[in-house]
Amino acid sequence: MSARAGIVVTGTEVLTGRVSDRNGPWLAERLRELGVDLAYTAIVGDRPEDMEAALRFMADQGIALVLTSGGLGPTADDMTAEVVGRFQGREMVLDEELAERIAEIVRPLLKRWPDIDEGAIRAANVKQATIPAGATVLEPVGTAPGLVVPPLAAGGGPTVVVLPGPPRELQPMWQAALDTDTLRAALSGATVYHQRTLRLFGMPESEIAETLRVAEREGLELSTLEVTTCLKRGEVEVVTRFEPDAEAAYEAFEELVARRHPDTLFSRDGSTVDEQVAALLRGSGPSGTPRTIATAESCTGGLLAGRLTDLPGSSEYVKGGVVAYSDDAKVGLVGVPRELIEAHGAVSAQVADALAEGARSRFAAGVGVGVTGVAGPGGGTPEKPVGLVWLSVAVDGHETMTRSVHLPGGRADVRDRATTVAMHMIRRALSDG
Amino acid sequence: MSARAGIVVTGTEVLTGRVSDRNGPWLAERLRELGVDLAYTAIVGDRPEDMEAALRFMADQGIALVLTSGGLGPTADDMTAEVVGRFQGREMVLDEELAERIAEIVRPLLKRWPDIDEGAIRAANVKQATIPAGATVLEPVGTAPGLVVPPLAAGGGPTVVVLPGPPRELQPMWQAALDTDTLRAALSGATVYHQRTLRLFGMPESEIAETLRVAEREGLELSTLEVTTCLKRGEVEVVTRFEPDAEAAYEAFEELVARRHPDTLFSRDGSTVDEQVAALLRGSGPSGTPRTIATAESCTGGLLAGRLTDLPGSSEYVKGGVVAYSDDAKVGLVGVPRELIEAHGAVSAQVADALAEGARSRFAAGVGVGVTGVAGPGGGTPEKPVGLVWLSVAVDGHETMTRSVHLPGGRADVRDRATTVAMHMIRRALSDG
Repeated sequence: MSARAGIVVTGTEVLTGRVSDRNGPWLAERLRELGVDLAYTAIVGDRPEDMEAALRFMADQGIALVLTSGGLGPTADDMTAEVVGRFQGREMVLDEELAERIAEIVRPLLKRWPDIDEGAIRAANVKQATIPAGATVLEPVGTAPGLVVPPLAAGGGPTVVVLPGPPRELQPMWQAALDTDTLRAALSGATVYHQRTLRLFGMPESEIAETLRVAEREGLELSTLEVTTCLKRGEVEVVTRFEPDAEAAYEAFEELVARRHPDTLFSRDGSTVDEQVAALLRGSGPSGTPRTIATAESCTGGLLAGRLTDLPGSSEYVKGGVVAYSDDAKVGLVGVPRELIEAHGAVSAQVADALAEGARSRFAAGVGVGVTGVAGPGGGTPEKPVGLVWLSVAVDGHETMTRSVHLPGGRADVRDRATTVAMHMIRRALSDG
Repeated sequence: MSARAGIVVTGTEVLTGRVSDRNGPWLAERLRELGVDLAYTAIVGDRPEDMEAALRFMADQGIALVLTSGGLGPTADDMTAEVVGRFQGREMVLDEELAERIAEIVRPLLKRWPDIDEGAIRAANVKQATIPAGATVLEPVGTAPGLVVPPLAAGGGPTVVVLPGPPRELQPMWQAALDTDTLRAALSGATVYHQRTLRLFGMPESEIAETLRVAEREGLELSTLEVTTCLKRGEVEVVTRFEPDAEAAYEAFEELVARRHPDTLFSRDGSTVDEQVAALLRGSGPSGTPRTIATAESCTGGLLAGRLTDLPGSSEYVKGGVVAYSDDAKVGLVGVPRELIEAHGAVSAQVADALAEGARSRFAAGVGVGVTGVAGPGGGTPEKPVGLVWLSVAVDGHETMTRSVHLPGGRADVRDRATTVAMHMIRRALSDG
């Protein structure tokens, strides 16, 4: 039997949409790497009866492993440990040594706030160290301990792994949880799955639907593949899960996609366009020439530079950028001729080219990127509507690449999507040698 | 009886963490505005039996209204309409007129891709127009229609509102759904809740826990208030929900928070620091002076400029910014004296000040902001560890404000948190008149 897993994310702030959940997706990826099939993620508020109903639901579906995140903090609305203890039929007991270890951790942190109340801190420590009897403690990464809480009798329901809410505490603690015998036992019997990802840019999702129909007509064994397609930041992502003996069926499917979509399929190994651009700038592309890059952005307001510098080590090839939001900045900081702006408008091919050229020369970079557009909601005209963006990529010794796109959606969509288009233009410009 | 609601987000790409869900949080906010209590959000993959189990769970919990997102696309893994139809005991029927309306919508979109397969398009239209008998159709915003599907017999379970996955389709369609009689009927009897938000910056969450204990000792009627606290991008957010007759209890609680945390409580009206900074720059602060702003960023790589330009209309006060990732860019583009970098290092108070001053003078702005730090994971030293960030805010006619912070977490955390610290420094600098 294959072990299925569930995730219960707790917190009224997550349920009500005030905080976006980063833990569910992260844990889902980790389960996938382990080959464990995730069936459900449930988000519940800070109400014990709702949390318990979600745990009960998972148990009723035959889930063998439940991961919870959040609700381990010092405030009264943090009650995951207690709810999980009750769900597993285990009494709550104070672990005095754990309380002392938490106190040790908290002490230096308190120096920043000298006026803090000592009693408040002690009460918080005791609360966080009161745990279900028989649970395995996962040492705190922040101040909250995690827990692995097995059912009272083997086979009597899921094992529950209780993890804290802050991602930087949850992530290392998950690694520690994997080293516990209790979790290993719960994971035994998991089916191993392979997962492969294809990424395409510049076509609608319906084209992939048609490719799947063609695959069926051509007699490919699609029944052994779990293919899901989605649109993600303007790209089409095709993710396929399969058991090891379906490898040949997958290879045939991937070949079909490559044959039908030669110009749009840009990633067959799961790499993102960001990683590909980084590799090309480091010199691992066909031309083998390492190059530096600089940007001059208007409507994206720094987001393209922010995206280029997301990856560790990007200082090796990112020289910098200018956010030329005003015309004065375009002229003064990037050297765009004012006549060009007057003749063609700030959102134009000419100004995009001048921004790219200016970025390259001002920063003495090998690649210059210019972006100028109408992000909205205001500022659109019939000729230059909201969503129109001109982009230009200038590479040493190559012809400058210029194009316009008309991007759908609101201000945030237009700004984000424009950075995706820019990344793909950089990729193409550098791939051409 | 108060009507509780549930959300079912569908899509293997969301469940497995490849795509982050924007619809659940957005719908949660809309439900809150309507005063409808959201009990659960469930995320399920593209498997009919899992989706049906989640719907059954909601029904078993007495949920009166379920909103689903996703699974209305043209591919075979999109099967929400069919699952919801079966769940409600309704037959699937082809709505020929709807199929024709979808065809009309799709036709102009296909011009971008001239080589597309006509049969594939027709098959997609028919699939998307096959709906549960008796459902109310919500006209497509993209190409997918939405549905309001009531139970076969009144009181026979929840009403299910079926919405598409892309946020820019889902959001306007939700407005249309609210105008249907079926949804109005399902919403009748909802309890009205008030919700108020306080935001604090510069203290740990445990201080709020203590304030809640003090509130209890002082005899405040906390039982009528549902108080939740969370850490969000480095701020403490305190959100309180209450029924209208608990208004006085809330006012007393808010006064207590204001009295105990006078220096850290920066928002009592739900406004964000981003909105406050925007208002101050527009001139609605104590000084009443509108000012322009410019940035010079190193470790944040454009994210601060990106954040300042997030809000519509920011071009009125954002002049621009420089991403000075390399020392050459700091010297050449921002005018930081090279001797300063050599004497103190790029991550130093002196260089932060020179970046702020340089940003202000190069862009002829009223406010200049400089940020320089070690985002990691590499580049840290014992004296200047990963997470150390120097920030400086220079305002016309005021003393320059300079400070350092040591931020926890990984590269993305440090970069994001540094923009929050910068926003609060700008707010303080402009609030001082």
